[in-house]
Amino acid sequence: MPVVVQKYGGTSVGNAERIRNVARRIIATKNNGNDVVAVVSAMGDTTDDLIKLAYQITDQPNARELDVLLSTGEIVASTLLAMALKNFGYEAISLSGAQAGIHTDANYSHARIVNIDASRIMQEIHNGTIVIVAGFQGITKDSDTTTLGRGGSDTTAVALAASLGAKVCERYTDVEGIFTTDPRLVPEASKLKEVSYEEMLELTTYGSKVMHPRAVELGQIYNVPILVASSFNDHHGTLIHGGPMEIRNKVTAITQDMDVAKITILGVPDKPGVAASIFEPLAKAGVSVDTIVQNASIQNIADLTFTVAKGETEKALIVVRPIAENMGARECAVDTKLAKVSIIGSGMQNTPGYASSMFSTLFAAGINIQLITTSEIRITVIIADDNADEAVKALHKAFELDLI
Amino acid sequence: MPVVVQKYGGTSVGNAERIRNVARRIIATKNNGNDVVAVVSAMGDTTDDLIKLAYQITDQPNARELDVLLSTGEIVASTLLAMALKNFGYEAISLSGAQAGIHTDANYSHARIVNIDASRIMQEIHNGTIVIVAGFQGITKDSDTTTLGRGGSDTTAVALAASLGAKVCERYTDVEGIFTTDPRLVPEASKLKEVSYEEMLELTTYGSKVMHPRAVELGQIYNVPILVASSFNDHHGTLIHGGPMEIRNKVTAITQDMDVAKITILGVPDKPGVAASIFEPLAKAGVSVDTIVQNASIQNIADLTFTVAKGETEKALIVVRPIAENMGARECAVDTKLAKVSIIGSGMQNTPGYASSMFSTLFAAGINIQLITTSEIRITVIIADDNADEAVKALHKAFELDLI
Repeated sequence: MPVVVQKYGGTSVGNAERIRNVARRIIATKNNGNDVVAVVSAMGDTTDDLIKLAYQITDQPNARELDVLLSTGEIVASTLLAMALKNFGYEAISLSGAQAGIHTDANYSHARIVNIDASRIMQEIHNGTIVIVAGFQGITKDSDTTTLGRGGSDTTAVALAASLGAKVCERYTDVEGIFTTDPRLVPEASKLKEVSYEEMLELTTYGSKVMHPRAVELGQIYNVPILVASSFNDHHGTLIHGGPMEIRNKVTAITQDMDVAKITILGVPDKPGVAASIFEPLAKAGVSVDTIVQNASIQNIADLTFTVAKGETEKALIVVRPIAENMGARECAVDTKLAKVSIIGSGMQNTPGYASSMFSTLFAAGINIQLITTSEIRITVIIADDNADEAVKALHKAFELDLI
Repeated sequence: MPVVVQKYGGTSVGNAERIRNVARRIIATKNNGNDVVAVVSAMGDTTDDLIKLAYQITDQPNARELDVLLSTGEIVASTLLAMALKNFGYEAISLSGAQAGIHTDANYSHARIVNIDASRIMQEIHNGTIVIVAGFQGITKDSDTTTLGRGGSDTTAVALAASLGAKVCERYTDVEGIFTTDPRLVPEASKLKEVSYEEMLELTTYGSKVMHPRAVELGQIYNVPILVASSFNDHHGTLIHGGPMEIRNKVTAITQDMDVAKITILGVPDKPGVAASIFEPLAKAGVSVDTIVQNASIQNIADLTFTVAKGETEKALIVVRPIAENMGARECAVDTKLAKVSIIGSGMQNTPGYASSMFSTLFAAGINIQLITTSEIRITVIIADDNADEAVKALHKAFELDLI
């Protein structure tokens, strides 16, 4: 029988009634002739509650112990779901990350999966048993529990789907799918039937909070189709896959990211090693730098601009200011009232005209563009944050996403 | 360094402040030149809350899944205690039952420890690390989680102490020790400095709820001294041990058990096989029979009396009535208004006079004795439950336990 891996988020298993509903969904998939392996997150606010408990003990909870503590949340949810399935008359078993054979490195709180020994799962599936796996966790070679960090349960599900040769990894939360843009901003936003891994990666990085890029990357590497859909209704979701896919000559989605601050170092000497002398110390200080733009130099003097998350502005300035002073730069200018707006689509690859359409649309709306960056399937502009909503609406209309 | 195993009950780790206090107590033991292995129960009402969660899903939670679910309670407590110790600057690590090498059979919800592979604990101790073990749980040979049932965490602690050759197993709860009788009933009751395993087993079986007999038996078999003391103060506790111990020519404690019902089958033919024909069906029906007394027969007709827990009276009658009728017995009489009162003491062994002192004390108090049973170190009378408190007080005084 083909294997389907399903992943249910914390809201989907938030109480007993919802857990029973998830069980019904799993049973329907089983009855359609599939073996089912379901990965679950912790119920509702469980993880936050456990973190609070740890911080009642100490301001600096030990990383190893915190991982063991947090791992119990997913274990609780997995046992309850297995009970619900057995109650409906289906053979089911819950497995911890360790029992499911999810071997990780020993980087507590953000462990990476090293390999999966799926023999126990295969054996259970072979017996016709539905397997429920506690997401977000694994085990080191020394038998210590780890957690996978952000996007952990999604990563568990996609990794298991790859390891089991599943036909699809279905990922159910309270989100119905991937939209052409944020539906709260543009009511005309349409749900996409499918996106490519590349598009989804650009979407996740550029504003969409739907799915952590880590799990999408893993899906891309192992070519696991990922269905993003809601566990609360039967509306069609969005299939993230690699192909074969028609190259669509169009923009797929518009994204917005309001968390952008810009730092410009004015009057930087244009000579080798300058970029490294600024960005290496920033990296060491843990500041994540996004866009970097250097303008053409005049008389060997240039302006260097980069963007960071708003919350990291001060940290970045503490690192950058003495360096800038040292190299004789004129000043460090800061602007924290910015936003990023992007158009994304595989169809843009090798097809001219999208950038100019984007820029003229924004011009027609009276929006000034401060910075531009591009990838093969994405064009991003950085603009004043006041203009961000209007920019998304105008672009959504210009690229006819209202009509999907 | 000598090894001390400590066990902390659910009340002792009921909140963050109490967990920090437990950490301080462990550190004091460590600083006194001991390696410490601490076993913890789940915090406060955690286990009850998890059971409620399971029953929200189904009336009949699967036993395997329920065990995994419940095991998380002790794991949470163990990680928090390890965090508290690390926060105080001490190396500490939490281990699940599986990581601690506690191998059990596969009888979910009441598993028995088969053997302990203490290699991981030994390695941690060797590094100077304080080891915190999640109590009440183990792992089967198929790597499935089990729980040990009633008295589980005490059993974990005593088994680990035996396996590690610990000098003592200290068992901390909200109870200060073993008393000559229930202090809520007799304010003059004294806390015992020591009791023998045998006395403690009689105490646990006959009314004392302080410690499950299972852990005491394990201590007796492996000769592990067990200290019962409070985690909330530094008062001396009670040491349960085997010897060498002065044979004390006296009664150690008085116990009371109000949960007694008596069934008498009147007019039973006195011939081989009668007892078996009654007690085998009772055992099969899961009725636990306590005292059994058969009076001397007159003309081959006898009366057979036995006691059961009050809650099992109906169940027992359903089994016994048709059998009694079948064998031509006259009737089945029932009395549910009874209590058991016992005097216990190793010093009573091979020493005459205690029974007669007991009976004359009760006679002087005007209390009628309905049944008598004895072991080598215990004499038990069954009396009307109205008389039970008075009997305990009179006996406590007569055997001079007020003066300890």
